[in-house]
Amino acid sequence: VTTVPLLDRLHLQVAFVQEIDKLKRVIRRNTLLDGSRRENDAEHSWQLCMLALVMAEHAPPGIDLERVVAMLLIHDLVEIDAGDTFIYDAEAVLIQAERERQAADRIFGLLPEDQNTKLRALWDEFEDRVTPEAKFAKALDRFAPLLANHHTEGGTWKLYKVTADQVRRNVKIIDAGSPTLGAYARELVELSVQRGHLAEE
Amino acid sequence: VTTVPLLDRLHLQVAFVQEIDKLKRVIRRNTLLDGSRRENDAEHSWQLCMLALVMAEHAPPGIDLERVVAMLLIHDLVEIDAGDTFIYDAEAVLIQAERERQAADRIFGLLPEDQNTKLRALWDEFEDRVTPEAKFAKALDRFAPLLANHHTEGGTWKLYKVTADQVRRNVKIIDAGSPTLGAYARELVELSVQRGHLAEE
Ligand SMILES: [Ca+2]
Repeated sequence: VTTVPLLDRLHLQVAFVQEIDKLKRVIRRNTLLDGSRRENDAEHSWQLCMLALVMAEHAPPGIDLERVVAMLLIHDLVEIDAGDTFIYDAEAVLIQAERERQAADRIFGLLPEDQNTKLRALWDEFEDRVTPEAKFAKALDRFAPLLANHHTEGGTWKLYKVTADQVRRNVKIIDAGSPTLGAYARELVELSVQRGHLAEE
Repeated sequence: VTTVPLLDRLHLQVAFVQEIDKLKRVIRRNTLLDGSRRENDAEHSWQLCMLALVMAEHAPPGIDLERVVAMLLIHDLVEIDAGDTFIYDAEAVLIQAERERQAADRIFGLLPEDQNTKLRALWDEFEDRVTPEAKFAKALDRFAPLLANHHTEGGTWKLYKVTADQVRRNVKIIDAGSPTLGAYARELVELSVQRGHLAEE
């Protein structure tokens, strides 16, 4: 086992930090709550971490919140290379998976090997959605845009002609991470339908 | 002791999450690394959390990284009301302190009382800069713009006529949180001076 000198590690870490500045330029479909502009992946990631902090009590008991937050911090980094995929675009979602794996190889690969391994494992865990931490993190990733669409009179649902049944299927992912947030999300969906902000078909 | 029903708590938590969406519209002095636009506080907060994750080994041993990240997630929320203060504007920094306390009262006060108390204590801890966690978090808050200015040929140093001695004093705050990052920052400052990107006066 060789030990990489501290300064070499620091230089790799700085190069990684510089590279991921690009996440601030990956633009998502949805806008800020005030509708002033579309949201970027970096500020979206911050928001999900805040949700994790504030909604922790609605996660299954015993969850490791530190790992949830770490997952949410890094979950979209692959989009620097692979771009954002709209979750209701089924075809794009399939093609995207391979591109995202390649992006993970390249981007996490900028780090010292032990950190590459650690962050990659965290990203794989998020994508696999098996652990309670990954399920809760993914639930928040789906809960945030649903909340935003509900509060902006339909938002991207209207813009991209998403149907209520598509959103209802999506709520199951929220349910899997947090039954409380799932129940609340279901309530918001039905309210949005009643108000004409989300179409049945 | 009364127990607030779960749904009441959730409504307060959602109101808080909606309110802090505004952090995405608080604009800082510095730009993204590619110079394309100025940075906002939400994406800046995300970046600091990524720095904490990646640079954790340069913090004092035994540090609670979960608390560092939580501090960094919330450290700028007060700027929703109080605005961003340029750290080299000494007069503004003084006036700002009271406005930020009022902002903390209002914004954290949107949460259920126990969460208000918890997040407010975290923000106070960051501001007081006494614990190793707060010192490391603050070090990263100073390290990020220094790194950006170094890599953008002077950035806000040039734009706002900041001198090398002002930056050197600032490096002491980095030192206090992480001697390794402090030493590295000092190296970047002297390189910037040599290259004519940071003026001696
Ligand atoms: Ca600030």
